[in-house]
Amino acid sequence: MTYGAIPLPGGGVRFRVWAPNVRTLSVKIGTRVFPMTRAGEDFEVTIPEAHPGQRYFLVLDESRERPDPVSRSQPGGVQGPSEIVDPDSFAWSDTNWTGIPLADYILYELHTGTFTPEGTFESAIAKLPYLKQLGITAIELMPVAEFPGSRNWGYDGVDLYAPHSAYGGPAGLKKLIDACHREGLTVVLDVVYNHIGPEGNYLAEFAPYFTDRYRTPWGQAINFDGPASDGVRRFIIENALYWLTEYHIDALRLDAIHGIFDFSALHILAELSQRFHDEASRLGRQAWLIAESDLNDVRVIRPRETGGHGLDAQWHDEFHHSLLSYLTRAGHGFLAGFGRLEHIQKAITQGFVYDGIYSPCRHRRFGNSSAAEPGDKFVAFIQNHDQIANTCKGQRLTQRASSEQHKLAAALLLCSPYIPLLFMGEEFADPGPFLYFTSHTDPALARAVSEGRRNEHGEDFPDPQSEQAFKKSKITWPSLQQPRHAAMRRFYSDLIALRKRYKCLSNCRKDLTQVEINEEAGWLKLERRDASGERALLICNFASTPLAIDLPGWQPTLQTVSTPIPSAIAAQSAALYLRSSAFIRGQ
Amino acid sequence: MTYGAIPLPGGGVRFRVWAPNVRTLSVKIGTRVFPMTRAGEDFEVTIPEAHPGQRYFLVLDESRERPDPVSRSQPGGVQGPSEIVDPDSFAWSDTNWTGIPLADYILYELHTGTFTPEGTFESAIAKLPYLKQLGITAIELMPVAEFPGSRNWGYDGVDLYAPHSAYGGPAGLKKLIDACHREGLTVVLDVVYNHIGPEGNYLAEFAPYFTDRYRTPWGQAINFDGPASDGVRRFIIENALYWLTEYHIDALRLDAIHGIFDFSALHILAELSQRFHDEASRLGRQAWLIAESDLNDVRVIRPRETGGHGLDAQWHDEFHHSLLSYLTRAGHGFLAGFGRLEHIQKAITQGFVYDGIYSPCRHRRFGNSSAAEPGDKFVAFIQNHDQIANTCKGQRLTQRASSEQHKLAAALLLCSPYIPLLFMGEEFADPGPFLYFTSHTDPALARAVSEGRRNEHGEDFPDPQSEQAFKKSKITWPSLQQPRHAAMRRFYSDLIALRKRYKCLSNCRKDLTQVEINEEAGWLKLERRDASGERALLICNFASTPLAIDLPGWQPTLQTVSTPIPSAIAAQSAALYLRSSAFIRGQ
Repeated sequence: MTYGAIPLPGGGVRFRVWAPNVRTLSVKIGTRVFPMTRAGEDFEVTIPEAHPGQRYFLVLDESRERPDPVSRSQPGGVQGPSEIVDPDSFAWSDTNWTGIPLADYILYELHTGTFTPEGTFESAIAKLPYLKQLGITAIELMPVAEFPGSRNWGYDGVDLYAPHSAYGGPAGLKKLIDACHREGLTVVLDVVYNHIGPEGNYLAEFAPYFTDRYRTPWGQAINFDGPASDGVRRFIIENALYWLTEYHIDALRLDAIHGIFDFSALHILAELSQRFHDEASRLGRQAWLIAESDLNDVRVIRPRETGGHGLDAQWHDEFHHSLLSYLTRAGHGFLAGFGRLEHIQKAITQGFVYDGIYSPCRHRRFGNSSAAEPGDKFVAFIQNHDQIANTCKGQRLTQRASSEQHKLAAALLLCSPYIPLLFMGEEFADPGPFLYFTSHTDPALARAVSEGRRNEHGEDFPDPQSEQAFKKSKITWPSLQQPRHAAMRRFYSDLIALRKRYKCLSNCRKDLTQVEINEEAGWLKLERRDASGERALLICNFASTPLAIDLPGWQPTLQTVSTPIPSAIAAQSAALYLRSSAFIRGQ
Repeated sequence: MTYGAIPLPGGGVRFRVWAPNVRTLSVKIGTRVFPMTRAGEDFEVTIPEAHPGQRYFLVLDESRERPDPVSRSQPGGVQGPSEIVDPDSFAWSDTNWTGIPLADYILYELHTGTFTPEGTFESAIAKLPYLKQLGITAIELMPVAEFPGSRNWGYDGVDLYAPHSAYGGPAGLKKLIDACHREGLTVVLDVVYNHIGPEGNYLAEFAPYFTDRYRTPWGQAINFDGPASDGVRRFIIENALYWLTEYHIDALRLDAIHGIFDFSALHILAELSQRFHDEASRLGRQAWLIAESDLNDVRVIRPRETGGHGLDAQWHDEFHHSLLSYLTRAGHGFLAGFGRLEHIQKAITQGFVYDGIYSPCRHRRFGNSSAAEPGDKFVAFIQNHDQIANTCKGQRLTQRASSEQHKLAAALLLCSPYIPLLFMGEEFADPGPFLYFTSHTDPALARAVSEGRRNEHGEDFPDPQSEQAFKKSKITWPSLQQPRHAAMRRFYSDLIALRKRYKCLSNCRKDLTQVEINEEAGWLKLERRDASGERALLICNFASTPLAIDLPGWQPTLQTVSTPIPSAIAAQSAALYLRSSAFIRGQ
């Protein structure tokens, strides 16, 4: 970090702020005010008596007290003072940790506030053995940057460098990451670089962080290509590097990059990926950038040499859409234009389903082809925070489909050539909902959020501002004691174990993946191979009658039903078969 | 063309209009109204008794009479009726014409209304022998699409398919192009795909042609990536194909593509270039797309395989900026950040001067590197309509620099590895200005244009709305009789002849181009080579004292001063030397 409050080796703290919009700037600690000196667009001051743990405000033009734009900690929330943090004070125990290949990620998305009853980073540590046992290799934290109040998904974050005070702040997050690395788990952090939350957002007073040249659905667009955008780009890029270096983060999930508007000759994502990967190389670490992209554009994941942004992977929403739409017959919103087996087939073998063809929900031709991209450039899922709360009004798959259908979907996910992601609780069919929740303190904003949600989803929906919406979304761990939920969890861990054991399942090779379908009969056969000749065959029977099979030489390995029918796949179920070339040769 | 009024082989006319925003649509010819039938987003009707030459309005929702969005002719201006045109009625005489390579283009930009006293397409035909004699190989017409009134640069065009009625309409333009092809001249047409002129623009009543997601300085942004954008993209792409097929145009100059906003996975320019080049191939023609781009982004001119848009070339504004700024010491607006010989050097050898470095006038890092791109991907100039009227307040180079400096600049341009472009009259140092002029009929708009220009450029500027501004901008052909102007014209034709005669000058090979400079002494040496060993050396002495030289084996070929000094390059002058490898071997 080159900005913010930097404790000096010999004592004292140097403060540096980028603030071209400001006339004068001071640091206020307690009641003492230390004027800063202007140097170009920056303001600086070194305060010998300042030390970590102290709280400070920046005073703009001798009138307005504001948190530091690159505050490392906001113990009193988004409106409170910033805290001086010593980045070197945490005793890391992960010195030998260098990360793992992206293709080996088995992701578990979790929301810190609702993952445990306590809702903190530290309380999540107790769950790590459970996740390891499940087979997870990576946890993905929904955004942790300080947001208004204590209840929020995290996409309203305003202090991008400050882990949320209610979750346990910087020390808590470091403890969690350190514990993960000790357990051999990687940590992915969701970061929001497309907008800044509305409440407590004073960035525009400092510099032209925002632009009205483009529009986002969530707030003002960030100024990545206008006058003075160099400083804005540095603010974002240094944030990514900050998580990598000060927090030992293994990967970032870049939220909604379709809201990042940059027409300049060096796209901010290309510059970010270059800088991030260079820094990871320098540190000897395997670190990754994963985009959420609603563009269906391979430019996002192509190398920079061929005009791409050079990101390592992107979320594969259309895998979810095609599967959910087929299973539940839902066709609203983004699910319009899905609903046939051919969509699932294309999602598995090619990636983008909409690859330049007309999309009914977008009312235009959409996307380009990702057929040539390898499987480890996509993160696939059958549920995530967004799809549950927004697409399905808070309902998890377990409310929208039968237990058999759920298992069928999970089998397809974990046998797919993509990096799988589970959403917390999915593995045991948590019966609770996952809802949208906020705790805005600005009354007008709070009212707007409540009304907006009611207009979109109807009356029978908990008010996002209510504590109830938050509490209802907490994982119901006691359910795991019930046989139905325990069985689902076992099914998931069995599947994950198989994926890890067999290269033909975990190799992410789309070129060694084949899918055969029969729309009328309602079945799909997914075959995965490995270069060695090892083969896996997943047969999914979506129909309401059994599907006769005859597979000499194939080893039945896993069934989604507990009592399989001989020589058939039961209705609404799937079965996994394996064979090796050695086995074939032996026949 | 698949839309508009299409005369049928057996008589009658089929009308087809894309109009999803409209409830009912009719064709009105004279007083007769023919209701159209809706088919999806289109409306269609075939009228057996209609024929070319008739005028028609489209009647929207039984109330508003509007011209056809793809009208081929607007004889009464932008508010008048459209005219049915038979695209096959013109007797072309250029059947053997297939175009020429882009690297052989020597461009002459002209504005039809001010190029000749009459200001028409046909009157320009008489000037073609003059242009051929000068050495020009391509004329570039400023936009001709129907605009409000009779005086306009063309960038306020609203009927993109209708050559302007005041210039002579479709028949006049075809006559001019046919005559050019007979003379062996290619024709480039400037087309505006970034906005539509404000007056007479009814497109939004038909369909969502526009979007408020992006902003352009000139008007509403065109909807290239939102809902229903497929129809908008077709409207633009078919326009490009229309000029290629119905008008035998050899190349399009795409105005200000930095105002074309498209975040979709298939950029409109990539789709356009694919379609345009495919169609040219099908026709067996050499046809080209040249962008005006203020992005300094090689993506524009890179092939589609490496993530580019696949356009063939782009304007090289920074060649102009670096040369003009150095010659005239001007440093305002876009000229800020230029003014040293190193900028000229970089512009000649690399292309983009701002290739990722900080640009003072843009207040940010700007551009990427075009060092690897060949010279025929850039069109260079020392003057053009925009630079004269906007950057230099209407003053041509001849008003802003000495005759020697003008010749020096021309020598650098025509010895550069780029495709050269002259602006009409430049070749004889036309003493008249080239001003901004309009003839809006909407009083509020007319007032806004007049006031806007006055605020930007001051009081001592002719009102753009005045006929005077237009008349003053007409080429003053009688000046050619004066010795000073005739001498300049001879200098240009000599230079062009040399460029054409010597491959080392015309080969557009940047990799065989070297530039040496001395900022303190004020000289620049440009060496060009050919694979055969032929070499050219242009020495430019920008200083106010002579530059001593000793060049044994080099053949003095051209001087910018009429009375050269022995063994020296005179102050403010340049000299061109040639040698061949045969000559070197003979030494």
